[in-house]
Amino acid sequence: MFTNKPRFFACFIFLLPIFLLAEDGSLLWLRYDPVTAAQAAGRHIIVAKPMGAIVQVAKTELDTYWRGPTVDLVLDKKMKHLNEGYQLKWKKDHLQVVAYKDRGLLYGAYHLLRLQQEGRDLQGIDLTEIPDYDVRILNHWDNLDGTVERGYAGRSLWKWDELPTAISPRYAAYARSNASIGINAVVLNNVNASPDILRPDYLLKVKALADVFRLYGIQVYLSINFSSPKVIGGVHDSDPLNPEVRAWWKAKVREIYKSIPDFGGFLVKANSEGQPGPQDYNRTHADGANMLADALAPYNGLVMWRAFVYNPTNEDRAKQAYLEFVPLDGAFRDNVIIQIKNGPIDFQPREPFTPLFGAMKETTQMIEFQITQEYLGFSNHLVYLAPLFKETLDSDTYASGKGSTIAKLTDGTLRTAKRTAIAAVANIGEDSNWTGHNFAQANWYAFGRLAWNHSLTSDQIASEWIRSTFTPHEEFVQPIKQMMLESREAAVNYMMPLGLHHIFAFDHHYGPEPWGDRQGGRPDWMPWYYHNANSAGLGFDRSATGSNAVSQYFAPLDRIYGDLETCPENFLLWFHHVPWSYQMKNGRSMWAELCYKYDEGVQQVRAFQQIWDKLESHVDSQRFADVQSKLKIQAKDAVWWKDACLLYFQTFSEQPIPYAIERPIHELEDLKKIKLKLKHHN
Amino acid sequence: MFTNKPRFFACFIFLLPIFLLAEDGSLLWLRYDPVTAAQAAGRHIIVAKPMGAIVQVAKTELDTYWRGPTVDLVLDKKMKHLNEGYQLKWKKDHLQVVAYKDRGLLYGAYHLLRLQQEGRDLQGIDLTEIPDYDVRILNHWDNLDGTVERGYAGRSLWKWDELPTAISPRYAAYARSNASIGINAVVLNNVNASPDILRPDYLLKVKALADVFRLYGIQVYLSINFSSPKVIGGVHDSDPLNPEVRAWWKAKVREIYKSIPDFGGFLVKANSEGQPGPQDYNRTHADGANMLADALAPYNGLVMWRAFVYNPTNEDRAKQAYLEFVPLDGAFRDNVIIQIKNGPIDFQPREPFTPLFGAMKETTQMIEFQITQEYLGFSNHLVYLAPLFKETLDSDTYASGKGSTIAKLTDGTLRTAKRTAIAAVANIGEDSNWTGHNFAQANWYAFGRLAWNHSLTSDQIASEWIRSTFTPHEEFVQPIKQMMLESREAAVNYMMPLGLHHIFAFDHHYGPEPWGDRQGGRPDWMPWYYHNANSAGLGFDRSATGSNAVSQYFAPLDRIYGDLETCPENFLLWFHHVPWSYQMKNGRSMWAELCYKYDEGVQQVRAFQQIWDKLESHVDSQRFADVQSKLKIQAKDAVWWKDACLLYFQTFSEQPIPYAIERPIHELEDLKKIKLKLKHHN
Repeated sequence: MFTNKPRFFACFIFLLPIFLLAEDGSLLWLRYDPVTAAQAAGRHIIVAKPMGAIVQVAKTELDTYWRGPTVDLVLDKKMKHLNEGYQLKWKKDHLQVVAYKDRGLLYGAYHLLRLQQEGRDLQGIDLTEIPDYDVRILNHWDNLDGTVERGYAGRSLWKWDELPTAISPRYAAYARSNASIGINAVVLNNVNASPDILRPDYLLKVKALADVFRLYGIQVYLSINFSSPKVIGGVHDSDPLNPEVRAWWKAKVREIYKSIPDFGGFLVKANSEGQPGPQDYNRTHADGANMLADALAPYNGLVMWRAFVYNPTNEDRAKQAYLEFVPLDGAFRDNVIIQIKNGPIDFQPREPFTPLFGAMKETTQMIEFQITQEYLGFSNHLVYLAPLFKETLDSDTYASGKGSTIAKLTDGTLRTAKRTAIAAVANIGEDSNWTGHNFAQANWYAFGRLAWNHSLTSDQIASEWIRSTFTPHEEFVQPIKQMMLESREAAVNYMMPLGLHHIFAFDHHYGPEPWGDRQGGRPDWMPWYYHNANSAGLGFDRSATGSNAVSQYFAPLDRIYGDLETCPENFLLWFHHVPWSYQMKNGRSMWAELCYKYDEGVQQVRAFQQIWDKLESHVDSQRFADVQSKLKIQAKDAVWWKDACLLYFQTFSEQPIPYAIERPIHELEDLKKIKLKLKHHN
Repeated sequence: MFTNKPRFFACFIFLLPIFLLAEDGSLLWLRYDPVTAAQAAGRHIIVAKPMGAIVQVAKTELDTYWRGPTVDLVLDKKMKHLNEGYQLKWKKDHLQVVAYKDRGLLYGAYHLLRLQQEGRDLQGIDLTEIPDYDVRILNHWDNLDGTVERGYAGRSLWKWDELPTAISPRYAAYARSNASIGINAVVLNNVNASPDILRPDYLLKVKALADVFRLYGIQVYLSINFSSPKVIGGVHDSDPLNPEVRAWWKAKVREIYKSIPDFGGFLVKANSEGQPGPQDYNRTHADGANMLADALAPYNGLVMWRAFVYNPTNEDRAKQAYLEFVPLDGAFRDNVIIQIKNGPIDFQPREPFTPLFGAMKETTQMIEFQITQEYLGFSNHLVYLAPLFKETLDSDTYASGKGSTIAKLTDGTLRTAKRTAIAAVANIGEDSNWTGHNFAQANWYAFGRLAWNHSLTSDQIASEWIRSTFTPHEEFVQPIKQMMLESREAAVNYMMPLGLHHIFAFDHHYGPEPWGDRQGGRPDWMPWYYHNANSAGLGFDRSATGSNAVSQYFAPLDRIYGDLETCPENFLLWFHHVPWSYQMKNGRSMWAELCYKYDEGVQQVRAFQQIWDKLESHVDSQRFADVQSKLKIQAKDAVWWKDACLLYFQTFSEQPIPYAIERPIHELEDLKKIKLKLKHHN
């Protein structure tokens, strides 16, 4: 007897392993299936000739992966308002993508492919997308020796030793991934920059990368060392007012543009944490930035000048960027942008926004986020950062009255700017999944999407990313999205709740060290400088009775933050030294609330483990195991953080941890002995 | 102005530190406060002269600590039925303690002091206490080099190098502690015995200890090495039928009794785990035991001959003691007692009783418990063992019909015996708190109390111990008692639930190693021999289809244990190889139930931590911190056990851990790499 049954059964057996096939995460969110000839029959990707290289890429992507109707890619030089954006329009029997620039067509093509991946209906579609920022840039803190400062996904993607001869296929894959989310610029090297990057041999290597990236609409920028004229140029000094120095930079810029005509410009960390800068010659940040700006201006190049400066003085570190830069307002050239970290200290799990935003009325400002998780568990912890990015972008500074959000201050809405920009420190390395943690890919993705459209919600971005990266099945998407949306708050809870900050371990910044101290070390590198724990209470008094950092905020924030009763509780210990017994809004004492927050963080991570394990059948085995393994580390680390911080602060509060809370499993003295040997990359 | 207030306040300040004064646990449950002269005024401790040394101790204890009315200590040679017991009687205006032996008066005195400590009302008291067993003996596995096999409270109490010259005050303190709970005998040295213990110089040291112990009614026994005649006696062999050998033992025994007239006898581990024995000369256990018994008989000495024998054969290890000893029933002298471990394998967290109990009708049997926590987390885990002891003592063997409990089989009720005995391996070392863990003191206490009266409940004993050792405050006693009563089941849950056994780490037995294997090692030392995990299921088939160990049990146990459907679930994997999907009584699959049990164990220990922390104000700071610290270790170890066992068995069950359960935080491969370097003592 011969029936269909066995064949049907065999088919299932065959399909199952494919569905669960191990994957290494290298495809990121670009998990398009090539179309077969049959699927492509009768569907065309129409492009007018002559076709630029970027448009050619757009056409090839659609030719290879597009399952929908015919797509007409139209360049329209009248549509200047689109800038790098595009229109997507349903036209009876085909789709039209209209753009003003080549890049717009490429972005439009990726938009179509994303909609296809998400399983959306395109019938009747009519939308216009215009990016919120002109320059959407990744900062790589990659060193020329192949290490990455604060990189947790292996060594640098850039193989300096092999360039310009060997061109890794990952360079194009990297550029394509960026283009697919609208990122159009990259700084290749660490802000703690080696002067060598400007040597002719290195510029050849940079050119090789720029040539690859250009096809995907990516412009290359470089971090420069302010002492370059002296160190590699043979000039007597690097004084920005020294004509020789100025000439050296002009010549160097000319040399760069000769081989990289679309070179973007320079990123500069000057007079910060030991880096050289104009103050070495009693010049101002403006003197330094303007010199470079003048050299770049003829080529339309930009200077991104970082405001991350602080000196070991008695002044509250949180106030210093403001104090140094506000007096220079109006002194910068129009192709200089001041690049400001989202918070006034340094990429902590939660910070209020840097008060410098909006405080310079005549100076273009841009925000710098950190995608790499320097203070958020490296590539071991699942922390979805869109909520952190959004929290800052949506913060109302009141700089020009109510509604003066940081997004509007930096995107050209409230302040005119020659060009607007937004930056983030990348989390990308040579790991096969690019970012170390599969879910860290979502942070790269989220930055790109928010740089394009800062009105997107964290929820929308997570939803897009999950559908593209894993599966559009709702029973997977919903719980995973919830987990992601909760994850940043979980990390704040188990690391530094209620406005605590900078209580991590010295140097490598992984794990808790609220007791941290170094003989003769800079006070503003020590946790005690920030938490100020004593028998009276906990927190940094930045109110009028303390450092008065609150005065740097526009009204009414100065008053709201400055008053213990009105200060948002999630910033309480940032702005105030709060008595242990202070009553929180829920009636608990500050000490009890601190304990509950730490414990909540632990419980949240354990819940993430449950969510993930439960969805095993939706994920390929390799990514499932990778994430499962990372969540285990995160669960252990959360308990480590909780125990370390509560046991340590308890020596000051001298109160029991509320008994309803799961008890510590560590001894404080044992935790103090933990000294991890971690490099800046792994 | 001068008022009383300041003095009153000062008094409180003065009292507080006393209440919470750090204590090292060295007082055990004997935390009597000496009476002042005022308190003792008009109250007498009356004793007829001449007064024996033991009675003198009884009188001194009462003189020093008794706050109640006059006590009359009466020796009554007509009251033979009291044996070592006593009567306590209220006589109008004083209390009378009547005993047949000196020891009885001592035990009666400690009973009074215990009642005083517990805060009981003695008015109208009238009780008679007669011990259930004649010999209530601790087995010390102490080696002559000062180490202790399976000892976790530091090195041996016995300072062999200093003896007989230096007499540590701890010898008397130890004996007093034993006497206070009715223990009347100790084996000084390890059952893996060095022949040296019988050398004249060592016997002098033994005599010195015996002289101290005698004051507290404690008799000394020794473990002997069966090869002693050959090794230290210069005899050609140690064949028990060799007249020279027999003569050597007779002479040795005579020598011992000459200096220690109340010497108790010998404990023997023969032909077991590499120890020499009569089988080395093709003689039987009976030949060996009887030779020693004949030597001891003139002095009323006893031989305790251990039944813990098993050979690396194909026969189920659980069956071997029965197979070797049952054929010898009736062949032993009446001063030989067969000493049988409670379970047929080796002091596992839970075992069914050894079927040898009751199977020898003409042979005196005694039980051997283990107080030291070889398989129960050493001195790190809080595991109150009274429920384990009671579980075996109350087990009905059906050897002489229903009601043939092991207690009744060994206490003389169902089997006549020249003398009855009960033994346990001690957990005592030189640590200041004696037992390593403050709560391990309760296990020493519980053994003594049960050896005296096996009808006491675990609850009663815990209650006595807590009140005596910490405080009689009910708000402390109740939760601590609940914690203690639950603790053994918690350990079973997180270590070896559902009848799992012998899946601990090789050699040191601390921590899980279900994957354990050694090239060329004895199969019956390997975890896989016991758990038999495979894709079909888990457990050791000891039913009729397997090793048929069930056949060694009397009806109806053979049938109850032998049938998967009637076998108690807490012995399921002991007696059966059970399919992963087998449905348990609560409806869960066996695999799911296994997971829930492990998780329950973890949650139980965390609850213990909460209970303990909450009661901090009732405990002195040192004992509070010591126990808190141990509970942290236990909480971590419980998760270690859970993760190790579930992740390992999951490789066979190939099923997810139920998603409601807290997820593993370890990687199986990491756990497999853990190799602790632990000695037999610490």
